[in-house]
Amino acid sequence: MTVPTATLLISCPDQRGLVAKFANFIYSNGGNIIHADQHTDFASGLFLTRIEWQLGGFNLPRELIGPAFNAIAQPLQAEWRLHFSDKIPRIAIWVSRQDHCLFDLIWRQQAKEFSAEIPLIISNHTDLKAVGEQFGADFYHLPITKENKAEQEAKQLELLRQYNIDLVILAKYMQVLSTDFISQFPQIINIHHSFLPAFAGAKPYHKAHERGVKIIGATAHYVTPELDAGPIIEQDVVRVSHRDSIADLIRKGKDLERFVLARAVRLHLRHQVLIYDNRTVVFA
Amino acid sequence: MTVPTATLLISCPDQRGLVAKFANFIYSNGGNIIHADQHTDFASGLFLTRIEWQLGGFNLPRELIGPAFNAIAQPLQAEWRLHFSDKIPRIAIWVSRQDHCLFDLIWRQQAKEFSAEIPLIISNHTDLKAVGEQFGADFYHLPITKENKAEQEAKQLELLRQYNIDLVILAKYMQVLSTDFISQFPQIINIHHSFLPAFAGAKPYHKAHERGVKIIGATAHYVTPELDAGPIIEQDVVRVSHRDSIADLIRKGKDLERFVLARAVRLHLRHQVLIYDNRTVVFA
Amino acid sequence: MTVPTATLLISCPDQRGLVAKFANFIYSNGGNIIHADQHTDFASGLFLTRIEWQLGGFNLPRELIGPAFNAIAQPLQAEWRLHFSDKIPRIAIWVSRQDHCLFDLIWRQQAKEFSAEIPLIISNHTDLKAVGEQFGADFYHLPITKENKAEQEAKQLELLRQYNIDLVILAKYMQVLSTDFISQFPQIINIHHSFLPAFAGAKPYHKAHERGVKIIGATAHYVTPELDAGPIIEQDVVRVSHRDSIADLIRKGKDLERFVLARAVRLHLRHQVLIYDNRTVVFA
Amino acid sequence: MTVPTATLLISCPDQRGLVAKFANFIYSNGGNIIHADQHTDFASGLFLTRIEWQLGGFNLPRELIGPAFNAIAQPLQAEWRLHFSDKIPRIAIWVSRQDHCLFDLIWRQQAKEFSAEIPLIISNHTDLKAVGEQFGADFYHLPITKENKAEQEAKQLELLRQYNIDLVILAKYMQVLSTDFISQFPQIINIHHSFLPAFAGAKPYHKAHERGVKIIGATAHYVTPELDAGPIIEQDVVRVSHRDSIADLIRKGKDLERFVLARAVRLHLRHQVLIYDNRTVVFA
Repeated sequence: MTVPTATLLISCPDQRGLVAKFANFIYSNGGNIIHADQHTDFASGLFLTRIEWQLGGFNLPRELIGPAFNAIAQPLQAEWRLHFSDKIPRIAIWVSRQDHCLFDLIWRQQAKEFSAEIPLIISNHTDLKAVGEQFGADFYHLPITKENKAEQEAKQLELLRQYNIDLVILAKYMQVLSTDFISQFPQIINIHHSFLPAFAGAKPYHKAHERGVKIIGATAHYVTPELDAGPIIEQDVVRVSHRDSIADLIRKGKDLERFVLARAVRLHLRHQVLIYDNRTVVFA
Repeated sequence: MTVPTATLLISCPDQRGLVAKFANFIYSNGGNIIHADQHTDFASGLFLTRIEWQLGGFNLPRELIGPAFNAIAQPLQAEWRLHFSDKIPRIAIWVSRQDHCLFDLIWRQQAKEFSAEIPLIISNHTDLKAVGEQFGADFYHLPITKENKAEQEAKQLELLRQYNIDLVILAKYMQVLSTDFISQFPQIINIHHSFLPAFAGAKPYHKAHERGVKIIGATAHYVTPELDAGPIIEQDVVRVSHRDSIADLIRKGKDLERFVLARAVRLHLRHQVLIYDNRTVVFA
Repeated sequence: MTVPTATLLISCPDQRGLVAKFANFIYSNGGNIIHADQHTDFASGLFLTRIEWQLGGFNLPRELIGPAFNAIAQPLQAEWRLHFSDKIPRIAIWVSRQDHCLFDLIWRQQAKEFSAEIPLIISNHTDLKAVGEQFGADFYHLPITKENKAEQEAKQLELLRQYNIDLVILAKYMQVLSTDFISQFPQIINIHHSFLPAFAGAKPYHKAHERGVKIIGATAHYVTPELDAGPIIEQDVVRVSHRDSIADLIRKGKDLERFVLARAVRLHLRHQVLIYDNRTVVFA
Repeated sequence: MTVPTATLLISCPDQRGLVAKFANFIYSNGGNIIHADQHTDFASGLFLTRIEWQLGGFNLPRELIGPAFNAIAQPLQAEWRLHFSDKIPRIAIWVSRQDHCLFDLIWRQQAKEFSAEIPLIISNHTDLKAVGEQFGADFYHLPITKENKAEQEAKQLELLRQYNIDLVILAKYMQVLSTDFISQFPQIINIHHSFLPAFAGAKPYHKAHERGVKIIGATAHYVTPELDAGPIIEQDVVRVSHRDSIADLIRKGKDLERFVLARAVRLHLRHQVLIYDNRTVVFA
């Protein structure tokens, strides 16, 4: 599918005729819808939809699609975002010492499972410096202490701007971001090594072992100021038993973390995730 | 959701404007779409969609919806089916000796997981006679031999007509239906106790044990003349090990069979399954 | 396997020769071990084992097996329990209004998935009175209020004694048992409708929906004074999406609850569960 | 656990006293058993066991353990294999064009999930030459045609001898090995990209898509002369839907293949797999 497409993610108060209105907008301008999905949240009275159409043959030039759609959206009190599939997003991967998620993301990007560039790696340690360089990304070592955190976050924000980053992936980055940072750069996906909301915070595998659970999990979510409480994109689990030591949980969890994070990133990059009310609609 | 709804299941050659045309048909007649899902099979060039809307406030009387939609469908070479949610389907459950799927279906119907009536139970054995009677369904014992099969199938077809049956569920009915029977009554769902196409035919758990597989499965599918080769609606699996004897596989399999069959029946009864090309699109 | 067996569940400080000593005890008395499983918890320095052997041909009469084994166990500081497979346990099922776990347990008992008798059903509601009677169990309605709780628990304990009950199953019994009750009758299995420790306490499906999780779970555990914090026997999960309303979570959860509770009960009744340190070793 | 251990994998006709005899052999020589697991296959009358004990403090020197144990094993008609945990196995990975399993195995070896050396990579293509070299393994390009197959297999066998290889992993090596090759080097694990026995042979994802299955799988098995019919070590599955094209099945399957192969290799390398009767007992 190398033909470029446009995707609209829309949420608005539910009312009659929404599907027809949005579809007519595409059709009357000569567009060919290839995916359309919708969801009505009856409890909150919201209509949420994702529409993807081929840009080939579409009459409106790209820069006019947004303004033209806005004329329809505004009377409906609709919030919307417009994406083009050939706009390649730029990702910064943040890591600490563990390499499994970083390697996995890089492998998937090279295998073209993701359409994205990864020009920047930031870490509070130096362990993975060689990985970044081998792969062609710039690596920045920004160690964090209580004292220098605000200062380092300013540098991080500056790097995100400088590299024109669209998405930060916390790929086992073991530091908590400040509320201020998040408000300035809210496009952040984190992988947490537990089945949230169980075992939020530090050392979830130790806590899981202590509690004697029979299944462990991993959770990919958008980062919000409240720790490990942002909108969940994807989760998965694996069975464990009394034979599994904490080291085994960590080992099994690494596989979970790789997969769950990769699936969440792919969904995000394909504009299949719509956030509302601290939850996600995943159009998959 | 006690408001009655109408559901259209449509398949037609892909072309521009289909979403708009179908949505406009609903909207222009005052309908409120509550679910709309679509799929494009690019390989076969087919567009497949399911649209459900509330009948309250819809301007067309029920008997005119089909003819009116046909005027749109015909130029598009669309095949379509129209269902009303308050038309309660009538089910015949066919069993042999095992009771687990029968009990499970009855429990779900009584728990209102299904909207359906179950007036008729047919069996080639008498073991489950009491279950049917206790539950209020009529039970017919129609034993099958090579010699009487055609004759008994004639009686079975007569019973389906007499009881005005919409769907036959083979809930561990251990007889093969003839091609002739299937052509006369094609609305049949079967549960096969393996992960098809592995272990089609008789004694799948014995074959699975012999092969030493680490996972067993169950498959719910529509019945077609070729044995165990009809369109698959739902499948699921469970892990087994060397510790599991054939009796254990049968026991674990019963749970799978119950769940997989129940999920398939529910999807069918909610008109979420569209068949094409010996495959299903499940709008779930 | 109709030959009666004896099963020893043993935990003791780890040391050399334990497997040999325990196996020699069986062998020297003419026993044939059919299952032997062990686990060493290196962190706590504990050796935990389950040994099952055929009683046919065993030289010691049943009443002497315990005393004879104790002579070996005491110097090793071993804790142990001895069970005979032909001692059929007696179960009391406690319910509130929901019938799915009750029906499922009864069906499995009748299908001989469990070797147990179910002479007693206790409920704080009358909804399931007919189920108990139809099945041949005595049904007692003991409504609970803040004021009468202590009094009703006294009656419940009296019933457990009167019916000679070995195990209480809380099959969606929506009342919390007092610490005093639990100390007097500690053999209690509960099914909690969440993936503990997430969503302990009331209304877990509502909380799960609110949190926007992508997977829900169920947990079977032994009851201890701290609510929903006892040793976990079994857990399982099912995937959910934004399309699932709270009613859907409840519906999907019912299937989970049935399965997870049934698996836990079966493991317990086969003496495959060893509790230590608020955790379980499941020899399966 | 850096203390070296010895592991015995034993199968023999079932009879009284086997657990005691084997445990006594370890204990009487001063060994400390850390894992002991057993299985009785009642249908075939076989007793199968795995015993692992610490070599520290064991009285017998390594070279005498085998002969000493044989004196016990022979009267019991037992087949057995003895392994030492500090004997690091040497692996040859065979690939064609796809890199995902190769990368994954290398990553796990470097992350110490496997205790093994990987000195040799053999391929019938040149695509992955750089990967091998970057990682420090020798890479041999041995293209296969109908005409040169016997000749190339002779070279391959020579390389396996030269590099002193203990295990061949076919990590998406898309050629069939001859019966003659397998008889000369039988220690081979293959990853097949389907849930065997479904879709044996070529192009399983295409066949799965054609059949419209709702779940796809992967299978790791020992290679035997009959194609895709050797003893299964591990299997796993992932859910698919009508939305998944063949390309999506391939993408999802890659993750399955990586995991299933890695788990099988780990089990093999830890001597947790016992083969009998074209099946495996996995002591995990």
